[in-house]
Amino acid sequence: MAGFDRATALRAGEPGRYQAELDPQWSIAGKLNGGYLLSLCGRAAEAELNSGGGADAEAPAFPHPIAASAHYLASPEAGEADLDVTVLRRGRRTATARVALGTPAGVCVEALVTCGGLEGGEPFHQGAPPPVLPPVAGCPRLPVEGPGFQVPMMAVVAEHLDPATMGWAVGHPSRAGELRGWLVLDDGREPDPLFLLTAVDSFPPASFDLGLSGWVPTIALTAYVRALPAPGPLTVRQRARHVAGGRVDEDCDVWDSTGRLVASGNQLAGVRHP
Amino acid sequence: MAGFDRATALRAGEPGRYQAELDPQWSIAGKLNGGYLLSLCGRAAEAELNSGGGADAEAPAFPHPIAASAHYLASPEAGEADLDVTVLRRGRRTATARVALGTPAGVCVEALVTCGGLEGGEPFHQGAPPPVLPPVAGCPRLPVEGPGFQVPMMAVVAEHLDPATMGWAVGHPSRAGELRGWLVLDDGREPDPLFLLTAVDSFPPASFDLGLSGWVPTIALTAYVRALPAPGPLTVRQRARHVAGGRVDEDCDVWDSTGRLVASGNQLAGVRHP
Repeated sequence: MAGFDRATALRAGEPGRYQAELDPQWSIAGKLNGGYLLSLCGRAAEAELNSGGGADAEAPAFPHPIAASAHYLASPEAGEADLDVTVLRRGRRTATARVALGTPAGVCVEALVTCGGLEGGEPFHQGAPPPVLPPVAGCPRLPVEGPGFQVPMMAVVAEHLDPATMGWAVGHPSRAGELRGWLVLDDGREPDPLFLLTAVDSFPPASFDLGLSGWVPTIALTAYVRALPAPGPLTVRQRARHVAGGRVDEDCDVWDSTGRLVASGNQLAGVRHP
Repeated sequence: MAGFDRATALRAGEPGRYQAELDPQWSIAGKLNGGYLLSLCGRAAEAELNSGGGADAEAPAFPHPIAASAHYLASPEAGEADLDVTVLRRGRRTATARVALGTPAGVCVEALVTCGGLEGGEPFHQGAPPPVLPPVAGCPRLPVEGPGFQVPMMAVVAEHLDPATMGWAVGHPSRAGELRGWLVLDDGREPDPLFLLTAVDSFPPASFDLGLSGWVPTIALTAYVRALPAPGPLTVRQRARHVAGGRVDEDCDVWDSTGRLVASGNQLAGVRHP
């Protein structure tokens, strides 16, 4: 069982180049999770933007990913990967890098990542209040065995779904297009901004709750990190919005254990529908 | 008065390189609009992805931008600009390019753009139904003169806001964080996917309706185009969601004159708040 930190560990190579070992544990039906790949891009951007210039000795100037946008070109095989980071700008409060994640077969993901600080303090406006969920014990954990496929990621990420949003698993989707639940890492690691880039793409496709099934390949994914998460379980809400022309857009909000919004994500994905 | 097509016209230079003339008409308080810059990136990506290989003679393989994500590095001056396009992938149904928009002062915007076809047919699920607006004649047009600043873009883009969402203009924000209204181009040009990349960032910041004022500089903007828009006025809803730590995330939905969702956008921006 490989935890998040080991699965996203980077080795620094030549300037601007990092190596990673893509971990098959973080896959769904044989495909590495898009959020996991975004976390790798975020980690590489953060490392590069804070390297050099003597900044290593001090607190990093741009400590966290705050906005990360990836377009998915190909589904990488697990194993050896390179992350090439190009610094685009270092500003006063934020810095931006481009990251290309490639395997020996070619570039698989290209991402733009802006890093900066995350200030504390109460939100001025919390436009997305957290849903009220039953206690974790009342929310069934998603299994590693899907119907005809494996979801190895569910062995390291505990996703406990609100039973009110699980009807699709027994053939009765609510057709609201919404999944809600708790998210905890099995190895006890607490959430941080880098993990939040995975969290916004870790739930099952909310299109399942519209009665649609099958693979939902992410075309593009964007994550915004809004605050440092407090320790404890995350609350996640994944919603499918518009399904047309073979594509669905989904949004995902993530709150920490204090009920604060800590991340939100948006993605466009392919989907089969009547 | 410079229309959208003239303001986003490109001249092809060396392979993968295009020139544009950034038009000060498409600016707000002295800053070129982020959506306008995204449209330029979209046009360059579309041109490059469909060039070469004899494809010009046939219907383009990847005719429309379907997902475009930009990170804003610096605010470009109006005038001469270069757009450097790198093709990342040409697939069966979609193709992706990276675009760097720069002026003589340096790179200002970097964007990832995925292009493809937009199928017709009824949506399987319309998760975001359009708001009901008063007729255009009952919705005041936003003026070119702001309080202490100019919005030249409002001379070419007619934005007629639902009076129910205009209280902020007279010191009475609703605090819902939502603006709604009609959008029409003054030169009679009908909306298309390239213009939709502008439309998702063309309304005033919805943070105004939370009682916040001042410049809201876009950090990152993503647009998804979901259908070919029918001719006629667009309906736009811009919403501010979460305001914390000096940043706001806003979403924007755009419907065509038949009530079909045609685009949605998300952005993270800086904002001043108590």
